[in-house]
Amino acid sequence: MPEPVLPDPPVTPAPLFETAVVAGVGLIGGSVAMGLRQRFLARRVIGLDASMDVLREAEALGLVDEVRPGPGEWLREADLVVLAAPMRALIPLARELAPYLNPAALVTDVGSVKGGISAEMERLGVRGFVAGHPMAGSERGGVTHANAALLENAVWVLTPTDHTPLTALSRARTLVEHLGAAPVVMPPDAHDALVATVSHLPYLASLALTHMVARDERLSLLAAGGFRDLTRVASGDPRMSRDMVVENRTALKEALARFRRQLERLEADLDEPEELLAAAHEGKRTRDSLPVVKRSLLPQKHDLVVAVPDRPNQIGAVTQALGAAGVNIKDIEVLAIREEGGALRLGLESTEAVAHAAQILRAEGFEVRGRA
Amino acid sequence: MPEPVLPDPPVTPAPLFETAVVAGVGLIGGSVAMGLRQRFLARRVIGLDASMDVLREAEALGLVDEVRPGPGEWLREADLVVLAAPMRALIPLARELAPYLNPAALVTDVGSVKGGISAEMERLGVRGFVAGHPMAGSERGGVTHANAALLENAVWVLTPTDHTPLTALSRARTLVEHLGAAPVVMPPDAHDALVATVSHLPYLASLALTHMVARDERLSLLAAGGFRDLTRVASGDPRMSRDMVVENRTALKEALARFRRQLERLEADLDEPEELLAAAHEGKRTRDSLPVVKRSLLPQKHDLVVAVPDRPNQIGAVTQALGAAGVNIKDIEVLAIREEGGALRLGLESTEAVAHAAQILRAEGFEVRGRA
Repeated sequence: MPEPVLPDPPVTPAPLFETAVVAGVGLIGGSVAMGLRQRFLARRVIGLDASMDVLREAEALGLVDEVRPGPGEWLREADLVVLAAPMRALIPLARELAPYLNPAALVTDVGSVKGGISAEMERLGVRGFVAGHPMAGSERGGVTHANAALLENAVWVLTPTDHTPLTALSRARTLVEHLGAAPVVMPPDAHDALVATVSHLPYLASLALTHMVARDERLSLLAAGGFRDLTRVASGDPRMSRDMVVENRTALKEALARFRRQLERLEADLDEPEELLAAAHEGKRTRDSLPVVKRSLLPQKHDLVVAVPDRPNQIGAVTQALGAAGVNIKDIEVLAIREEGGALRLGLESTEAVAHAAQILRAEGFEVRGRA
Repeated sequence: MPEPVLPDPPVTPAPLFETAVVAGVGLIGGSVAMGLRQRFLARRVIGLDASMDVLREAEALGLVDEVRPGPGEWLREADLVVLAAPMRALIPLARELAPYLNPAALVTDVGSVKGGISAEMERLGVRGFVAGHPMAGSERGGVTHANAALLENAVWVLTPTDHTPLTALSRARTLVEHLGAAPVVMPPDAHDALVATVSHLPYLASLALTHMVARDERLSLLAAGGFRDLTRVASGDPRMSRDMVVENRTALKEALARFRRQLERLEADLDEPEELLAAAHEGKRTRDSLPVVKRSLLPQKHDLVVAVPDRPNQIGAVTQALGAAGVNIKDIEVLAIREEGGALRLGLESTEAVAHAAQILRAEGFEVRGRA
């Protein structure tokens, strides 16, 4: 009887980056760090932040492997640097880090206005820079609300300039895709004009509406339903919102001028009911055709991520091992498949199930990461 | 041993109205009819609508006891008439019904602009009229989406004029309270100015923003999240929205002028970052202090409503009878207690439980209404 052919022992696939640094570990920076770790995209993830409290929290939440309170020679080891400081701190941070950056590193940022940082990076001579803007957020900011799922299926704009090396753009695009987001490439000024229209102008309009009901009890009593929807964006962090619109004020003023013209046309149509009806129909058609961003519906807390080498039947090996041990898999998703392999996200039933499954899969030689 | 004292057999309390007519059985009219029936506020509820399809649907859904395709002498029996036609049909409906109205009847409407209908009712000599506006709605209109829960905890504005009899206002207020809503009284022109600000201006602003992204694929790609929230009201029924803003165009033009001044101030503040920060803080404070309308969270479909006379331990009698039969009560709410008694809403687990509980309580002599 021939000896049975034993499968090769599973190995961890090679990550996209060796050493990733996330500078500024807030809502978005923390979410990027978590995505890098959960999806095995970097061998180690270092959190850099001026606040020791933030760094301790990031470590406690398992978002990063290591932390650093400030830049230094160690930064040269990084082959990925993500600048994720708030808007007002972004350019100072870039200046502080620039002397230590490895010329071969991919450097990117996550700010919501792209003209200023792109120009500054060119002045600083950071060649491998590709500016980026993940269109993701939450009313609740800060590292404690960081969640890799925030980035899933989000549009992530990349804004190369004429000086951006194509290899850097290609690596940035791969990074974004592997974080589960959808890269969209356009010049910085085009991005800034678009976000002025879809984000910064709506914020100002919302603020103006909110001011109209301020200090009037009868108004705020009647301001339920639609008005609350319409002014939700005015409820975000005032300083971050202010910094964002001031940074983009040139494009925003142009968007305001166009908004005023639209309002004037609609006001004139109040005396032309047929025109107004056509405008109302057109508005509904446009609104109803806006894309909906689908996020993972499963709560993230009972997830386990397993690194799988690119070899036949790895999904089968994982599910059979868990099935034999009576672990119920409620959801399964292939996160990212590269040439060297990829990762599976498993949705399990409980904290106990995550711990149990992790133990079983580690015994089988798989590398796993969970957030129980 | 003395003979045990037996409780009196339970009786149905006297309703607020004998014959209620809801003219126009759409989303709001249907919800009012359902509230009148579920909460035992009228001995019979008649649905009046020009569409036989709508009337059949209202009967099938159990919203009304009887239906009529048009007005006639029978209307004199009504001691409550609620005009719930769409804005453009409201004044024609009032003129059609006026000749048949009983002078002792309470007449009200549910339109979203109050100046025009108030003036028209005065011209028609309808003495017992109190204009009203329940601030409730849904993106999904029509009788099929009618639900008494829509009105629960909603602000319901009543707009008497100098000619409104105080008894009519008092009865209208009682009606609104018994439907579970919160009455707020103010003059018609004050109401129209307020809704111009909190409802009609936001609609126009939302429409203007929507038009700015029309026919631009890159814009609509980036228009996720906040922009979708902000333009949700542009997704409502175009004709109803158009009719509403045109009817209120005088007040709306004033609100537009104030909105423009607010926008101009914020635009100027883009060059005064400290001013803009103060404005952002004020906006957030105002937005965060807007009241939240709490609706029943329990699905209405497994509810049973029981009429209870105002006598000791009626709640105990209901719960004991069901408990003895093994019916699990998941939620219980005292709907309205008047001098003659009131009603209990019971949340049960299933359609079967509603049918079972109804059988048990009827056997005990209670009057019950359910929506299984």
